[in-house]
Amino acid sequence: MSAEKTEKTPSVETIARRARAAALQLAALSTESKNAALEAVGSKLEQRREDILESNRADKADCEAEVEAGSLSGALFKRLDLEGSKFESMLAGVGDVARLPDPVGQVTLATRLDEGLDLYRVSCPLGVIGVIFEARPEAAVQIAALALKSSNAVILKGGREASRTNEALVSVIQEALGEVDGVSPDAVQLVSTREEVREMLDLDRWIDLIIPRGSNELVQSIQEATRIPVLGHADGICSVYIDRDADERKAVAVSVDAKTHYPAACNACETLLVHRERLGDLLPVLGAALREAGVEIRADEEAAAHLDAAIAAVPEDYDTEFLDRILAVRTVASLEEAVEHINSHGSHHTDAIVTEDAAAAEYFLSRVDSAGVFHNASTRFADGFRFGLGAEVGISTNKTHARGPVGLEGLVIYKYRLYGSGHAAADYDPGAGEFLHDEIEPRELP
Amino acid sequence: MSAEKTEKTPSVETIARRARAAALQLAALSTESKNAALEAVGSKLEQRREDILESNRADKADCEAEVEAGSLSGALFKRLDLEGSKFESMLAGVGDVARLPDPVGQVTLATRLDEGLDLYRVSCPLGVIGVIFEARPEAAVQIAALALKSSNAVILKGGREASRTNEALVSVIQEALGEVDGVSPDAVQLVSTREEVREMLDLDRWIDLIIPRGSNELVQSIQEATRIPVLGHADGICSVYIDRDADERKAVAVSVDAKTHYPAACNACETLLVHRERLGDLLPVLGAALREAGVEIRADEEAAAHLDAAIAAVPEDYDTEFLDRILAVRTVASLEEAVEHINSHGSHHTDAIVTEDAAAAEYFLSRVDSAGVFHNASTRFADGFRFGLGAEVGISTNKTHARGPVGLEGLVIYKYRLYGSGHAAADYDPGAGEFLHDEIEPRELP
Repeated sequence: MSAEKTEKTPSVETIARRARAAALQLAALSTESKNAALEAVGSKLEQRREDILESNRADKADCEAEVEAGSLSGALFKRLDLEGSKFESMLAGVGDVARLPDPVGQVTLATRLDEGLDLYRVSCPLGVIGVIFEARPEAAVQIAALALKSSNAVILKGGREASRTNEALVSVIQEALGEVDGVSPDAVQLVSTREEVREMLDLDRWIDLIIPRGSNELVQSIQEATRIPVLGHADGICSVYIDRDADERKAVAVSVDAKTHYPAACNACETLLVHRERLGDLLPVLGAALREAGVEIRADEEAAAHLDAAIAAVPEDYDTEFLDRILAVRTVASLEEAVEHINSHGSHHTDAIVTEDAAAAEYFLSRVDSAGVFHNASTRFADGFRFGLGAEVGISTNKTHARGPVGLEGLVIYKYRLYGSGHAAADYDPGAGEFLHDEIEPRELP
Repeated sequence: MSAEKTEKTPSVETIARRARAAALQLAALSTESKNAALEAVGSKLEQRREDILESNRADKADCEAEVEAGSLSGALFKRLDLEGSKFESMLAGVGDVARLPDPVGQVTLATRLDEGLDLYRVSCPLGVIGVIFEARPEAAVQIAALALKSSNAVILKGGREASRTNEALVSVIQEALGEVDGVSPDAVQLVSTREEVREMLDLDRWIDLIIPRGSNELVQSIQEATRIPVLGHADGICSVYIDRDADERKAVAVSVDAKTHYPAACNACETLLVHRERLGDLLPVLGAALREAGVEIRADEEAAAHLDAAIAAVPEDYDTEFLDRILAVRTVASLEEAVEHINSHGSHHTDAIVTEDAAAAEYFLSRVDSAGVFHNASTRFADGFRFGLGAEVGISTNKTHARGPVGLEGLVIYKYRLYGSGHAAADYDPGAGEFLHDEIEPRELP
């Protein structure tokens, strides 16, 4: 029994070792070969559409019962569905990724250390990435495509509800990869249980980056359980600060959009800070616009006096990601106080100032310690697509590696390639030869 | 008593909070102001030379007794000494850092999202850095200078043996900073006990990066004890692979330099891999050259047959950082086997191939998963100064953020600044407005 089990479901360490081997192979693959692999994946998914949708229907049937029993939300059920236009856009996504520039092989530094001794810093894949995502099965395909484009192997863990769909998708991807020269099907693998995720988080020797895509709780629990670098964000407590010199039209446009465009998003505004001098004239206008958009306002006493139907805020409201049409409003005495509030209560995600005072804007943008610092623009612009990055791996509130909306460049690092002809460091000891350190043209590296 | 203690020695959390506040101030500082601060630090150190050297003599006196008692090594005692040319080069180092380009404020992406809505990705400091170093007190000054130049606050922990010297240096730096506008003395702080280091490692809310500079054990123990990103390397197991098509002169030059130029360095070669077909003609020549340089060779049976006075290698020799004139030699049947050996036994630091075969070199350079991959050049070139980076914060074997010899750019990240005039994301929903996403000229940001 146990031997049979081993054969059927390899250990997570075996999966990770295989992924590492596949990654080392991918690292040497040309852009053309990677695009060919992506094309093969797209075609195979199209060919196997019916099989995949059948698995998806089986998942949905199971979940329907759970929705009826009340143990699963209707929203989650919707996200699970892969029929119709969702399947099409999933396929289109693979083509989009193929058309993105190759993030690997970019020369970012080229220095002639001496005659015949040339140094190049060249972007290269990270290696093996573990991605934990919830519900939407099309994420498996999107992530696999991004990983392949950046020459990384990936281990996927999808939501339990979509397990059959994910298995079908990954097995089709593996089948497609198996038909491409120089790519191992092990480049994209799937694990399915929480226990396996826990095992993954211990494999810092084999896995280079973990990307959790999902709820605050998911991300936090992963950050706490692993020594592998985690790319992502837990909280999204974004603020809009209405400065003394705010323009009314801009204040309304930015606040209402930041709060109501999509309240469940991480880049939605949760806290509105208002300069004391604008409580009398501007806050009532803002309050009316927000109320009209269905927003519940929780305000401090001073601000509440200028608002209709505001609820009294409690301290925790300023540390809460509501993810809903609820907004905490706080009066501040100065720009400095606003910045201090944001740096200590916010989540270093995205924060905006509304002001006509350029110096105040610069003060805010240079001192607010967040991935996105916006002047007279909604926090909702913090997004890989809106930023024009082409693809988004996730939004990071990390201070190292990659910050803010992360595109393919978040999946690469670099290595130093040095080309000599028998050069020895001793020949450059003090009193011996001198280095040139001349900047040279980056050459095409094979 | 306890109140007095609190006043004298603030808690590490207090130190870190103060550092954070100082860092937010530094983030907005101009290049000129930072250089002025560095100049002030240099002058003050010069002024206070006698006080500093007096503290240094007190440290030395204490340690002399320990050296005599045999509880401290003579090498360590030497590293502690700050007299004479060491003090001069410490001062010169501060000036060197001032002359480096400012790593902060570099615009690495500029996109017009729409008319009047411009996005800039701008390099910015990490925030607060914790640096743990051993013995050499001049490291405190060098690190403080690098931190200031990159607008980061720093918390230093030096070696116990140099405690008085470190205290004198940091108090002089703080005094200098106190006289510069816009810089808080809290930008450079010192902690002194191991207990404080342990506390530091828990403060992931206030500290953004830890840089341990010292022994393998120090680095490893820190990596294991913190969730804060750690920049550095534990092991330095570097290899040189002598390919079938290796040139004899280059093979000798690279192997001897990599092993003997400075055997105690992390970029020294520990393992020599030799292609089976070169055991007969080339290995004896290499062996003789290495033996002449005082190297003890531990070889597998096959290789040993072609070497005079080689010791039989045990498996652990291929996983050992000797940091001494000892070299593990192993026969490989192919380039592929060499790459596999390096990827599984090496420490992903720096590895070299000696070959005249360009295709073999490319195979090696693209598949060896190390920060430095060198062709016909000694591993000893893996160094910030030799690479021309101007300053070296450390050498990193991390896969994320910064890899290889790390200069000032390893102490910065970036933020996205978006400048609009009341722009709302809803205006770009499908069917509404379209983004331009035009690349624009990076403008000078204040």
